[in-house]
Amino acid sequence: LTVAEFDLIALIRDRCAIAREDVRLGIGDDAALLAVPAGQLLAVSTDTLVSGVHFPQSAKAYDIGWKALAVNLSDLAAMGATPAWAVLALTQPQADPRWVAEFAEGFAALAREFKFALVGGDTTQGPLSITVTVHGFVPDGAALLRSGARAGDAVFVTGTLGDAAAGLRCLDKNDCDADRLVSAPAGTRETLIERLHRPVPRVAQGLALRGRVSACIDISDGLLADLGHICSASGVGAELDADALPSSSALLAVFDADARRAFQLGGGDDYELCFTAKEGEASSLLGDLARSGCGATRIGRIVAKSGVRVSDAAGNCVPIVKAGWEHFE
Amino acid sequence: LTVAEFDLIALIRDRCAIAREDVRLGIGDDAALLAVPAGQLLAVSTDTLVSGVHFPQSAKAYDIGWKALAVNLSDLAAMGATPAWAVLALTQPQADPRWVAEFAEGFAALAREFKFALVGGDTTQGPLSITVTVHGFVPDGAALLRSGARAGDAVFVTGTLGDAAAGLRCLDKNDCDADRLVSAPAGTRETLIERLHRPVPRVAQGLALRGRVSACIDISDGLLADLGHICSASGVGAELDADALPSSSALLAVFDADARRAFQLGGGDDYELCFTAKEGEASSLLGDLARSGCGATRIGRIVAKSGVRVSDAAGNCVPIVKAGWEHFE
Repeated sequence: LTVAEFDLIALIRDRCAIAREDVRLGIGDDAALLAVPAGQLLAVSTDTLVSGVHFPQSAKAYDIGWKALAVNLSDLAAMGATPAWAVLALTQPQADPRWVAEFAEGFAALAREFKFALVGGDTTQGPLSITVTVHGFVPDGAALLRSGARAGDAVFVTGTLGDAAAGLRCLDKNDCDADRLVSAPAGTRETLIERLHRPVPRVAQGLALRGRVSACIDISDGLLADLGHICSASGVGAELDADALPSSSALLAVFDADARRAFQLGGGDDYELCFTAKEGEASSLLGDLARSGCGATRIGRIVAKSGVRVSDAAGNCVPIVKAGWEHFE
Repeated sequence: LTVAEFDLIALIRDRCAIAREDVRLGIGDDAALLAVPAGQLLAVSTDTLVSGVHFPQSAKAYDIGWKALAVNLSDLAAMGATPAWAVLALTQPQADPRWVAEFAEGFAALAREFKFALVGGDTTQGPLSITVTVHGFVPDGAALLRSGARAGDAVFVTGTLGDAAAGLRCLDKNDCDADRLVSAPAGTRETLIERLHRPVPRVAQGLALRGRVSACIDISDGLLADLGHICSASGVGAELDADALPSSSALLAVFDADARRAFQLGGGDDYELCFTAKEGEASSLLGDLARSGCGATRIGRIVAKSGVRVSDAAGNCVPIVKAGWEHFE
């Protein structure tokens, strides 16, 4: 740590100061010292955001701080883990305390919701990128894995799909849907863009699913890709009902059915949970999730034949069009 | 994870496959699941290497893999922690399986020495950089902190100092010491450059220091800067004996006393341990460290007055010249 580096980290630490008894030593030494509760496994995940790839170069520091933590908390949510601590590696072209302060505000705003502590970090000079490594707890045997889906299970998603990809489209100045956007209710564009920049990790929902689902994943690369990971890990396939995919009112206000479907199936960055469970569990699960503040929708079923297929209510196969989740550069 | 991303991570995982019973779930789900032994605290640290900043763009993938892990293990060593697990975030301009395979070989070569497991990762597209987050164990109350140095303690370093900074100088084609380098024994240049590219974390030495030293840090930014961190954290100062700084035979063969001193005091990347202990502990500590495979040297003492001062054997104050640890670009 150089002095400048230490100051930047201190700047973040001060904004993220959350007292946790299990943090025996936080930022300021060669490593943090942390106590994992007896009987709990440690869940660890890491994700990097690169400027121009995972967020546009015009993104606000606050939003980048929020999202860098959110995408990682989403991984803990998908495991059914309780968030506890993070370490942060921040690379920026020049040490920029004002930028870092705003970044830290966004990071801390989300961290506070979960009494989540920043316990260590490293700041380096280079092209802007952020790597967050998160730690959580899950009782031995209670984690939500990708590998337990069985033929006959139902497939669900929390919240609504496609908003983040639609938000990305709304950032495009040459947007072909501009006319529809103009006639949409006030704030619609902002709502979609906020879903892109400030995803909400489904932590409470992940905890509610413990012991009740056969597989779970968070949707970062798009429903088809991520459900595909469940299918691969479980040795099964899936059939989705295109008409069941949940849409927000903002998405419905701006995009037609074909565009919505492309966003919902292939668009990334939704950070909703996709999970599978026995059909008989469906009504109690859906009721409990609705009460958790973020409902879920049944969107299909697990089958023995590998691959993910999508059909509409009439039973016609829906051609799968990649949403074109492109880099920002 | 995209499919390509997953393949790269699998490529690394296969080369780093080390069976550990405490890894309940490794790479391939949303998070790793890990068991911390009862009675042990978890030590966590993260460090980023950026191309052109922390290593030259010409560096070999193998060396980058080695160093990315080494600098992090060095932080665990400085805490007196036993290495256990890492997660890796790798950003590269294009997915390059051959580069990743060589990177993984270097990473794994060092990991194997400590039965250290890679348990998770993320690969992204962008300017080359690597963030490793390491996890280790230390019994509650046994960690080596920066904050315990007291006036009257002796100051020590493991190994030799200045080789990495000298190795960096050797990479410079316009090297002003080129004549001395030509007349040095065969392999001298390579020895110094290897110290830069493949630092050896002093893990066994950190473990040997548990319960016997008042403060410890690893030397990443240079002796003066890092001993300065101990002094700040402990509320003390230090006086160093410039003539006591340990030099390798390679360093002695190429550089004069002034150049050596600049490298040793201000040069970074040595990854030796600097620690403080009561004078009465010195002989037993030095004996045990010599038997550990990496000896240590007494280089000064802790004083009440803040700041770090350096003097030669005659008692003259040595002016401190920053070694000029510059970016590679």
